[in-house]
Parts: sequence; structure tokens; C-alpha cells
Amino acid sequence: MPRVGIVMGSQSDDPVAQQVVQVLEQMGIDYEVRVLSAHRAPGRLATYVEEAPERGVELFIGLAGGSAALPGAIAAWTTLPVLGVPVASSDLKGIDALMAIAQMPPGVPVGCMAVGNWGARNAAFMAASILGLKYDEIKKAYGEYRQKQREG
Amino acid sequence: MPRVGIVMGSQSDDPVAQQVVQVLEQMGIDYEVRVLSAHRAPGRLATYVEEAPERGVELFIGLAGGSAALPGAIAAWTTLPVLGVPVASSDLKGIDALMAIAQMPPGVPVGCMAVGNWGARNAAFMAASILGLKYDEIKKAYGEYRQKQREG
Amino acid sequence: MPRVGIVMGSQSDDPVAQQVVQVLEQMGIDYEVRVLSAHRAPGRLATYVEEAPERGVELFIGLAGGSAALPGAIAAWTTLPVLGVPVASSDLKGIDALMAIAQMPPGVPVGCMAVGNWGARNAAFMAASILGLKYDEIKKAYGEYRQKQREG
Amino acid sequence: MPRVGIVMGSQSDDPVAQQVVQVLEQMGIDYEVRVLSAHRAPGRLATYVEEAPERGVELFIGLAGGSAALPGAIAAWTTLPVLGVPVASSDLKGIDALMAIAQMPPGVPVGCMAVGNWGARNAAFMAASILGLKYDEIKKAYGEYRQKQREG
Amino acid sequence: MPRVGIVMGSQSDDPVAQQVVQVLEQMGIDYEVRVLSAHRAPGRLATYVEEAPERGVELFIGLAGGSAALPGAIAAWTTLPVLGVPVASSDLKGIDALMAIAQMPPGVPVGCMAVGNWGARNAAFMAASILGLKYDEIKKAYGEYRQKQREG
Amino acid sequence: MPRVGIVMGSQSDDPVAQQVVQVLEQMGIDYEVRVLSAHRAPGRLATYVEEAPERGVELFIGLAGGSAALPGAIAAWTTLPVLGVPVASSDLKGIDALMAIAQMPPGVPVGCMAVGNWGARNAAFMAASILGLKYDEIKKAYGEYRQKQREG
Amino acid sequence: MPRVGIVMGSQSDDPVAQQVVQVLEQMGIDYEVRVLSAHRAPGRLATYVEEAPERGVELFIGLAGGSAALPGAIAAWTTLPVLGVPVASSDLKGIDALMAIAQMPPGVPVGCMAVGNWGARNAAFMAASILGLKYDEIKKAYGEYRQKQREG
Amino acid sequence: MPRVGIVMGSQSDDPVAQQVVQVLEQMGIDYEVRVLSAHRAPGRLATYVEEAPERGVELFIGLAGGSAALPGAIAAWTTLPVLGVPVASSDLKGIDALMAIAQMPPGVPVGCMAVGNWGARNAAFMAASILGLKYDEIKKAYGEYRQKQREG
Repeated sequence: MPRVGIVMGSQSDDPVAQQVVQVLEQMGIDYEVRVLSAHRAPGRLATYVEEAPERGVELFIGLAGGSAALPGAIAAWTTLPVLGVPVASSDLKGIDALMAIAQMPPGVPVGCMAVGNWGARNAAFMAASILGLKYDEIKKAYGEYRQKQREG
Repeated sequence: MPRVGIVMGSQSDDPVAQQVVQVLEQMGIDYEVRVLSAHRAPGRLATYVEEAPERGVELFIGLAGGSAALPGAIAAWTTLPVLGVPVASSDLKGIDALMAIAQMPPGVPVGCMAVGNWGARNAAFMAASILGLKYDEIKKAYGEYRQKQREG
Repeated sequence: MPRVGIVMGSQSDDPVAQQVVQVLEQMGIDYEVRVLSAHRAPGRLATYVEEAPERGVELFIGLAGGSAALPGAIAAWTTLPVLGVPVASSDLKGIDALMAIAQMPPGVPVGCMAVGNWGARNAAFMAASILGLKYDEIKKAYGEYRQKQREG
Repeated sequence: MPRVGIVMGSQSDDPVAQQVVQVLEQMGIDYEVRVLSAHRAPGRLATYVEEAPERGVELFIGLAGGSAALPGAIAAWTTLPVLGVPVASSDLKGIDALMAIAQMPPGVPVGCMAVGNWGARNAAFMAASILGLKYDEIKKAYGEYRQKQREG
Repeated sequence: MPRVGIVMGSQSDDPVAQQVVQVLEQMGIDYEVRVLSAHRAPGRLATYVEEAPERGVELFIGLAGGSAALPGAIAAWTTLPVLGVPVASSDLKGIDALMAIAQMPPGVPVGCMAVGNWGARNAAFMAASILGLKYDEIKKAYGEYRQKQREG
Repeated sequence: MPRVGIVMGSQSDDPVAQQVVQVLEQMGIDYEVRVLSAHRAPGRLATYVEEAPERGVELFIGLAGGSAALPGAIAAWTTLPVLGVPVASSDLKGIDALMAIAQMPPGVPVGCMAVGNWGARNAAFMAASILGLKYDEIKKAYGEYRQKQREG
Repeated sequence: MPRVGIVMGSQSDDPVAQQVVQVLEQMGIDYEVRVLSAHRAPGRLATYVEEAPERGVELFIGLAGGSAALPGAIAAWTTLPVLGVPVASSDLKGIDALMAIAQMPPGVPVGCMAVGNWGARNAAFMAASILGLKYDEIKKAYGEYRQKQREG
Repeated sequence: MPRVGIVMGSQSDDPVAQQVVQVLEQMGIDYEVRVLSAHRAPGRLATYVEEAPERGVELFIGLAGGSAALPGAIAAWTTLPVLGVPVASSDLKGIDALMAIAQMPPGVPVGCMAVGNWGARNAAFMAASILGLKYDEIKKAYGEYRQKQREG
């Protein structure tokens, strides 16, 4: 049962999305992955976000570059936690996406991570920290990872 | 019959939206104004954008600050022209909204104007230039304005 | 009969201009292409802009990097719609051109697109959306493209 | 029993911290507030973060300006979720804090919110969305708020 | 006989232009002042630039905010030296005008000064240093000013 | 006996750290090198900073990218001088680290150097200038280097 | 006997310089203050920097806005430690001065502090940390200050 | 007899300096080239600037990256016109040098050109435009170049 719904705005964001996947697997967290643009397919995105909880999704991670409306568009359709990863895919190399994702207006929050692979990995770790509040095995897996980091 | 649908993301953007209104009236272009957030009310925004053409709307102007997803969200639901006005309402004073509105991904265009009042006035002038392709009286009104400007 | 006049500030902007061309052809919109610098050949630019409507041009797309005065200079000589594409050709990689094109003073509007290829493709899509107000076959072509996008 | 630990880097950040407080109270979420600098009192901060869970804290919100190391310093000492709010208190007006909080290295995540009051309010809403995964009354309170927003 | 042609893009730039005037008078350099927008009145600007040398103008100073095309537009019509002063009149507070004026493409140079009053005063001092190559009394006046500065 | 403690936040910063090493050796200054993250191993960093003076360390140089909390975290645990070198390792290429290191709040100072290799070399030269106040041979070595530079 | 030479580029920087003074007095460090521009009085600045050590000066603090060449110009004439404080006096509000001071080329180091009052206070604290290596009473005063901070 | 003194801050700036040289030769303007750092060799720079006029130099062009103090340091020692070319040699890629060169304080002007090769070529063209006020053959050469540009 997928706990995390990973959505990327464009197929070209896949290498960054794979960083999320890697860490989620390391943490033992199930997930599903979709390519769904907030701009090109707003209806399908809305439907996806509204139906995903039925499959078990409790948290969304949206990856997008440029205007990077995707994480905010997910947040608009759900009250589940949404994390956003700015991707450096436009000619402005991610500073645009960082601002677009971080500067959400009050009422509809998105937790913005770092640009690119750093942020993609951290979105998965943050998911572990959030889901760990509820699922002990995730809390344990993430705790052990951090413990090794401390010693490493 | 409103030709232009003006949408602002928040009631606090109204002073900037009034700059659009002033110029549209000067150009003799009918309009309607809505406060509809892409994040807080995505469904109502979608409905508005899909139904507005039935009332005569042929062009949308979206004003928003911060993440400023509004113009892009309008564009996601229509093939009519969409102009976006970045508003300097967040603590980053509009550079965030400028990037969020200008850096739209390929396929779903938004014409980005300057931040704030400059851009709001120009969104209306640009609407005049676009609608002037089809309506002679608008072409004439805008042409006369520009002519006076040249002489002024 | 060309409907769109594409002007690039320098021959080196041609790869970006080709992105405009590709999408216009996909939309079935006729066009003409010129290399005309606002700074190096202001008189020839003015003449081109003033005479192009006689050949059928109803909308201009200007591509330029650095100071990127070209789209604004086109707009100064016409009341037809002007779209601007910032090109990342200077050492500042397009943030300069984005600001120069977006921050037009009130009265002479330019619709600014994203930096580089994203913006070039969207300038053509925006042209389709604008000309589609008047020409049904363009409206239809753009509508079908967007419909496929939604499903894709 | 406090569920959220709000930490501000400096007493002068209190007006922003009050925005967090207001929303948490609206959501019916208990909290505690501390003034603890990552730089001036690193040991006391570490102790606070390590002991807070014993009192019930399940999520931290750190507010800081300038170098804004506070949210990351909290995250360094816990595996609970940490949200960071950039404050516009330095002469650079928050762009520094936004980058410092968002650009966390992989392994120790912080969910970055918007600069200033927007972000402070959203940190509380995000806390509601996260804690709502576990506590039904919080899920319900936040869901009702969002529902009203949609209708408003 | 005016040696320097001061052109501002908008009447609202006058307080900055007065800084140029003050220093030119201090240096004993004659000047003339015009309000001529590159975008609103491109033909009148071209005419002014082409005719000013007949009255004695040997150097132009252009002041503009936002897209700030004015100094470059002057340079496009003359081979006389052109200095540009970015004005902080748009919502982006001059960083836009700085880039637009400094990032001129090769072939048509503009000497960019600092944003605002600093740059306005320096445009006049730079005019003194340039005209001082030809006119001994200007060289002397500027030399004495700098000498006093050194001692002050 | 090491006089300078070089700490890098990540093993991947080593090429930049080697620039510090090279210059310190050229100046005849002993040093030790550690890889210790402020975020992944805050306790070990604190211990290192508190114990290093016992081995003779009188000055710390911290190198870090992104949020770049390392130099400030060192400074939080010592009253010895701390220099910080922003590393261009994140997708934002060092502007983030520059702001994070430079914008320290009052009370806990870090001397920020340039981004990357320039700053790494200068951190070592600055260490020479600081330690030269106390150790004549270091003062002499640095003085001779600067003298050669002047003549070179 | 002054240990610290405070140099400001312009009399208008005095309020910021007073922040340095306040902290130095708190630390019991003698100082002298000069207004000397790197651009307007380069010879007098050079003379000052070369002669100050004879009066006891062992460290310089330079404050400047805009191009902010002052700290680097001091460093060019001495091998003593130089700290730089960017002042937000230009229309670009300190981001210019921050870059100008931080981005020193290899060989001639300046320790850059935060923009404005934060940085001014920290320049004095950093001076205390540096001079504390040699003078026990300064080390003690700064250590006590930091201790109180920790407890406060 | 050299009319233009080209000074670069570092030998590594030579490829950019060669762009100045090429255009000056095209314009028939004699020049001399020096590598002289404002920071590493301030005395030799001062001597060079003060003595160059004796050899015929009437205008200086300074090229520098990072803190880029060179053009301002030249201007500090002369009342002849000084043009500055920001070089993208630091990790911040020229935005630092652009601000450092453009934001000169009032009283000591530098005409800032675009970053990199664009600016280097334009510094030479601007030199032609300035020296053309006094030397007819330079005026003619530059005028012919611009005329060809217009036609090209």
C-alpha cells in the first residue's frame, strides 16, 4: 500500500524523482510515482490527488522546475502534507522554482526542500520523519539512518 | 458583455487590480472582476475559467503575489489568452511572483507583465492590443491613446 | 500571408527562434523571420515593424538577450500585440533579459515569456491563443494540441 | 501537552512567531514557545530539542533571519519533523534566510516555508496537516478550515 | 551652447535628473534637459538625438527605470558617448534597470552608472572627465573638484 | 602542533579544502583536517571544537555549501576566530552558502571569504595575517609572500 | 594605544560605525576612527594604513556601501587582519557591498561580515576573538560576554 | 603613442582583454596593456595610472572579476575617463563584478560595461566614441563601423 505519492511535472524530472525513490526504499516506505503536470493536465492531477488517499497515500512529494506550480496545485486539492522539490530544469537553474515553491500564500502550505538532488533526497527523509510519527517501523528506520550518519 | 476576466488571488491585490480596471475603461473594454485563489479554491477557479467564455470573456488577466500560481492555473483550464501580473505582496516584494509567472513550462503560455501597477496597466493595454485584432473600436481607442502618448 | 513576425536581435539567437518556428508550423500559422537589432539598426527595425502589417503580420515575437531592448522597441512602433522571449546569451544567462523584457513601463506592453526554449515555444503557443480569437482554424489547432496534452 | 515546539532565534522574531501561535490555536493544537539561538546558546538548544519530546512535542517550528541556522540546528538534534520560517530581520530582508533554510544538505531535512508572516501561518497549517495524520480532531479542524476557505 | 543632452524616460525621474544638473553646473558644463520615452515616443527620441549635435551636444545622459531602454535607444541613433543612469522607479527598485542598461550587446556601448542619485551625480562627473579631454576649462574644474575631495 | 583546524561539511568539499592546505603549508602553518557536518553530527562537531584548543588549535576554517551552517556552528562553540568558506556545491552554486555564512547574527562572528577556491586560499592567508599578530615567523612568511606579490 | 583602526568610506556611514565602537568599548578594546574613502582619497588612505601600526593598530575594520572597495583597499596596503562591513547605503541596499567585500581575489584576504548593524557589531566581536589570541584581558572579556549570552 | 591604457587585474583575464584589443585595432586606436592588481600591487597601479598620461594615455579600461576593485582604483588616481569591464572569473560568474564596478560612490565615476566579452568589445567602442570627440580619424572609423552595422 503506497504511503507516498510522488508526482513530477515532466518526464524529464525523472532522474531527480529517482533520488526520492532511492531514499524511500532505504526507509522501507511504499510509494507510487506519477507524471502529471499542473498546467498541462490540471483535471487529471486533481483527480489523482483526490483519489490517492483511497490507495493509502498519506503524503505527497511534488517535483517541478520553472514556475513549479505542481506542489502548490497538489496542496490545493488535499489537506495531507505536501513537500515540494524545486528542479533546476529551466534556464534560470532552479532559483525560479525555489521561490515559486517556497513562497506559498497563507492557508495552503507546502514544505519546500533544496533545489535538485539534495532536496529530492531530503523530501524522502522528511516523509520518513513525518510518517514516523504514526508508523513505528518508519520511525525506527529513519532513526537508525540518522544514528549511522552521526557515527559515520 | 465582459470581454476580459480579471482574477486576483487575494482581496488585498485589489488596489493593483484597479489599475487594470482604469485602463480597460479608458479603452472602452467591458470586464468582470473576481477574487479566486488558485490554491484556496481551485475548483471554483476552474469552473469560473470554463464558464466565463459563455458570458463573452475572451481574455483573462490574473494578478497574484508570492508563488503566484494564479495566471498559470487559469491558463491550465483555457486556450484563451492569459496575461499575468506579478504583485509585490510577499516579503520578497515581487521578484518571486515575476519568476513564478514568467517561467511557465512549454505548452501552457502566460504573457507576464511588469511587477505591480506598471504591469497591471500594461496588462490592460496588452488586452486592448490583442482584442483590437478583432474589434475595430478597441483598435481605434488604443491607437488613439498611443498616438497621444507619442505627441505628449 | 505571414501572420506572425519573428524578430531576433542577433543571428546567434537563431536556435531559440527555431523553437518558435516549429510550434507555429505545428499550429498552422504562417510567419516571417528577420534578424534586426534594436541597437544596431533602429531605423530598419522601425521600418520593418511599420511595414509588416501590410504583408499580413498581426503579432510580433521578439527574441533578445542581455539588455534585450528588442521586444520593447518593436512595441514602441506598433499597436499590434508583441511577445518577448528572453535569451540566455549574455554572461548573466538570461536573468538580465527577463527583467529587461518584463519590466516595461506603463503604456507600451510586451508579454514576457520564459527564458530560452521554454519561452520560445510558449510565444508561439500564445500567438496561437491570441490569433485563435479571430481565426477558427488556429483556435481549433491549438485546442486540439492542448486536448492531446491533457490526455498525454 | 504541547504537540508543537516553536523556537525563535531572537526575541525580536516574536511578532512573526505570534502568527504561528494564532493559527495553532485556531487548529486546536497545543504548543510551547522558546527563544533559543543556534549560535548564542547551542547547548541549551540541543538540550531543549532532546527533552521536548518527553513533554509531548512531536514537531518543531524554527523561525530565524539572516544566516537562519536555527531550523537546521533543531533538525540536527531530532528525527521529528522540523519546519523552518525565514524571517526578514536582516538588512537583506529574508532572501538570505530563505536560502539558508531551504538549501539543507541531504540527510537532515527541514521543510521551508515562505518568508515572514505568510510562512509563519503556513508552518502552523503544515503542522496541522502533519499532526492530522495521527490525530483525528486536528485533521478535522484543518479540513473544516480548508473547506471554509474553498467556499469563502 | 549645450554640451550635454540629459534625457529622462519619464517626468517622474526628474528628481534624479536634477542630481545630474547640479553637478554639471558645478563643473560649468552647459546642458539641455528633455523628457522623451524610448517606448512612448521613439520617433521623437530619434529626432532629438540626431538633431542635438547641431546645437552643440557632444554627450548624452539617459535616465530610466524598469526596462530602461532609453540609454541604449539613444546610443542606437548616435556615435557620441552615452551614459546611462538606472532609476529605482519600478517595483524591483533598480536592479532591473541596472541590468538592462549595463548588459548592452557588443557594438553599441553605454557607460552604466550606479542606480539612483549616486549614478546621476557620477554621470555628470564622468561627462566632465570625458569633455575635459577636449575642453581645458572643464578639465580644470573637474581636477579642482577632485583635488578638494582628496583633501576633504 | 596544529594551529588551524580545517573542518569541511562533506567529503566532497575536499578539493576546496586542499586549497586551504596548500596555502597554509606555503605559510608554514600547522593544521589538522576534519570532515564533520553541523547537521549530521552536531555532537561530534561540538566535541571537536571544544577539544581542538587542547591540541594547539587557535583558529578554525569551516567550508560548506548550501545552507552552510558549519562555520556558524563552529563559532557557536568557541571564542577563537572562525573563518567561513562558501562552497558552490548545491544547485544554487554558492550564492546560498555566501549569504548563509556572511549574514551571521550579532554576537557570534564568522569572517566570510569568497565562494570556492578564491575564498579557500584567502581563508589561509587571513589565518596567516591573524596568527602573524602572535607568531613572528608566520608574520614574516606572509609578509614575504605579499612582498613578492607586489613585485610580481 | 589604539588596537583597532575603524575606517568608514563616508561620513554617512557613521551610525553603522558607532555599532563597532559600542562593542569594542564593551570589550575594552582601544580604537581610532577615520573617514577615508578608497576612491576619493586613495593616497591618504594608503598613508593611514601604513602609519597606523606605529600607533599600535593591529587590526582594521572597513565599512563601506555600494562598490565598497574600502576594506579591500586597506588590505592591499597591509598584512594585518582586515574585516569588512557592507553598508546598505546605495539604492541596491547592501547586496552590492556584500558581494564586493566578500569576493576578494586570492592573496589579499578580507573577512566579510553581515550587511549593516549586525555585521558592524560582529566585526567588533571578531576583533575581540582575534586580539584575544594575544591579549588575555580581551580574551577574558569576550569569553565572559559569550558566557552571559549562553545563559541569557 | 598609446591613447588607451588597458589594465587587467589578473593574467587570467587576458582572453577578455584581447576583445578590447581587437576592437581598438579595428578602430585604429593605439593602446598599451598592463597586468596590475588593485589589491596585490596598489602602489604599482597608482604609479602606472599617474604616469600613463605622459605617454599619451587619455582613457583607461579596467577589467576585473569578483570584488573587481580595479576600475574604481584606477579612477581614484586619475581624472581621465575610466571604463570598467566585469569579468565572470569568480564562482559567482560576474554578477559580483557587475555590482562592484557599477555601484561607484558619487565623485569618482566609472562607466560600467556588460559582463565579459560583450562588455570588453563595448569598452573599446565606447573609447572610440569618447576619443572621437577629439580625434576626427577615430570619429570617422567608429562612424563607418556603425554605418556598416546599420546596413549589415
